[in-house]
Amino acid sequence: MLLAQIHLTLPAWVFDAVDTTRAYAGDGEKVALAIGLSRLNVEHASGGPFGAAVFGPDDRIVAVGVNRVLPHACSLAHAETMAYMLAQQRTQRARLNEDAAGARVGPYTLATSAQPCCQCYGATVWAGIDRLLIGARAEDVEALTEFDEGPLPADWVGELARRGIEVVRDIRRDDACEVLRAYGQRGGARY
Amino acid sequence: MLLAQIHLTLPAWVFDAVDTTRAYAGDGEKVALAIGLSRLNVEHASGGPFGAAVFGPDDRIVAVGVNRVLPHACSLAHAETMAYMLAQQRTQRARLNEDAAGARVGPYTLATSAQPCCQCYGATVWAGIDRLLIGARAEDVEALTEFDEGPLPADWVGELARRGIEVVRDIRRDDACEVLRAYGQRGGARY
Repeated sequence: MLLAQIHLTLPAWVFDAVDTTRAYAGDGEKVALAIGLSRLNVEHASGGPFGAAVFGPDDRIVAVGVNRVLPHACSLAHAETMAYMLAQQRTQRARLNEDAAGARVGPYTLATSAQPCCQCYGATVWAGIDRLLIGARAEDVEALTEFDEGPLPADWVGELARRGIEVVRDIRRDDACEVLRAYGQRGGARY
Repeated sequence: MLLAQIHLTLPAWVFDAVDTTRAYAGDGEKVALAIGLSRLNVEHASGGPFGAAVFGPDDRIVAVGVNRVLPHACSLAHAETMAYMLAQQRTQRARLNEDAAGARVGPYTLATSAQPCCQCYGATVWAGIDRLLIGARAEDVEALTEFDEGPLPADWVGELARRGIEVVRDIRRDDACEVLRAYGQRGGARY
């Protein structure tokens, strides 16, 4: 038997939780949305404590993502990767900030409740974003939960900067940590 | 508008190209299959020049993958990640070598026509494989095509070894390079 189809979904509650008509001005509002998604994902038991969102040049949502690893038995279904895939599907661009003729469009921003793991770090290199906004640090994730963030290049921020991706950290870090802490204290799954 | 569904597929030709009933004994046969898939993917114009396959403890195919980035407008749809997602879906395990009770099963092996890029490297950390068999090197990919492999940890092989993943390189390297060279000379797309 050979499988040839992959089908990944966001939980149905996202349709009630996300307003694609409003603008999320500023970095804090964008990361606050990602943290809100991480909290709702835990409350709805629809995946791990991580949320992310891609924003377009008008500060509106292009796509959102939450961790869906265990519901889909899929180690690729992290919050950031779900958001990237859905944003690319919506724009029909394999690099969000590059059109079919190779011209730059955007800028596009990913806001994530916690620092991308090694997999989402690599995905970020190819996704076509211009800015990466992060709530909790990797050390927060590893201290407050059983999750492992995996190996990164020593100068991971610089490697992104060299590819035109600006990284901003510690945005609403305490709020992000609160969700992780609550999840960790409940003994949530570790992937 | 909020999208919430991702649907990724392998091209229909894989059903004729892959025999899931036979055993692929030895590392060379496994990587030869991955290289064959990379070649067919170029010939059928169904994606970039990369192929991969996950093998179970009986040396039989669990799943295969080819690059589907441009057909699906999805930067996540690399050969290795497609193979991981399909193998996990077939086994219904988010880590291939770990059952629902956390006990080790397997071993599982990924064979890939070329060294995983930064994204597939990170995905490999979480996918639950025990062995990683590689055809062409990253420097081959970058010399022979326009593809960029992205930033990796300095000791990327050692980081995998510390997580129980054995890496074997340069398997059928010349055959793998031949596919990359032909693709590069045709001026194929770079992601």
